Amino acid sequence: MMKAAFSLLVLLVALSSAFGKYIPKSGKRIPQTLSRGWGDQLIWAQTYEEALYWSRSNNKPLMVIFHLEDCPHSKALKKKFSEDDAIMKKLDEEFVVLNLMYETTDKNLSPDGQYVPRIIFVDPSMTVRADIAGRYSNRLYAYEPSDTKILFENLKKALKLYKSEL
Amino acid sequence: MMKAAFSLLVLLVALSSAFGKYIPKSGKRIPQTLSRGWGDQLIWAQTYEEALYWSRSNNKPLMVIFHLEDCPHSKALKKKFSEDDAIMKKLDEEFVVLNLMYETTDKNLSPDGQYVPRIIFVDPSMTVRADIAGRYSNRLYAYEPSDTKILFENLKKALKLYKSEL
Repeated sequence: MMKAAFSLLVLLVALSSAFGKYIPKSGKRIPQTLSRGWGDQLIWAQTYEEALYWSRSNNKPLMVIFHLEDCPHSKALKKKFSEDDAIMKKLDEEFVVLNLMYETTDKNLSPDGQYVPRIIFVDPSMTVRADIAGRYSNRLYAYEPSDTKILFENLKKALKLYKSEL
Repeated sequence: MMKAAFSLLVLLVALSSAFGKYIPKSGKRIPQTLSRGWGDQLIWAQTYEEALYWSRSNNKPLMVIFHLEDCPHSKALKKKFSEDDAIMKKLDEEFVVLNLMYETTDKNLSPDGQYVPRIIFVDPSMTVRADIAGRYSNRLYAYEPSDTKILFENLKKALKLYKSEL
């Protein structure tokens, strides 16, 4: 136990020294993650351009999540989403993932408006899958925290639609 | 010592449980950071659109770093850059920062080509500062690890130019 704890101490010191010496006046910050809480184990693209490139070159559909950090609906969905192992596994193994807090210049990513949270699927052929929607007629690409099963079905749909068109 | 080590153990367990339950087949991953090693204490924009918005609304110039993870020149500059406290402080307090591994659709960000590493300054008025360059005539916006002083002077230039034009 003592030995293990000491190894952890060494690890933690090594980790903290890797973060550099500069400390902001307001105090040390936790480094920002690209996942922003949507699944720390997934490999997230940083930008839409990067995501499209990965999608094309790896032949995997792309899932884009539009969200805001101070939006309670985004937060509630994020919690359920990131804790859903089936969704995490499917996304990790068969999708390219991107989460954005800002709209892109591509209008195709907002077929019925720029609300959050909003989940849009894009094929490796760079076609936005406007046909893969949630269950709200006023906001087609919105999901509530209770909609994770529908979202999982949509992941399967994104893979199936795409494969059946090859 | 024992107590401190135990606290660390508790902290580490708490941290790891916050990362969710899903573990990829290839083993647990370290969450990706937005800094990508260019300064974990800085607050990085995720996309160019986000960076422009922050620059305009906070009235701070924007610095964009184009780099690649497997480029030895990018890596060498990143090390010197992130360890330079004067640069970190100035950027943290007076700039909006963005680092990208993919080009954007804005051609103004590559005045003399799309090489890496490349550092471009943009005014809060959204004007690319093509006049703020390093010391290489063939690649105007490239910096070597030994050029951190020139880079620091360019940070001051970006602030001065901008302020003198108000």
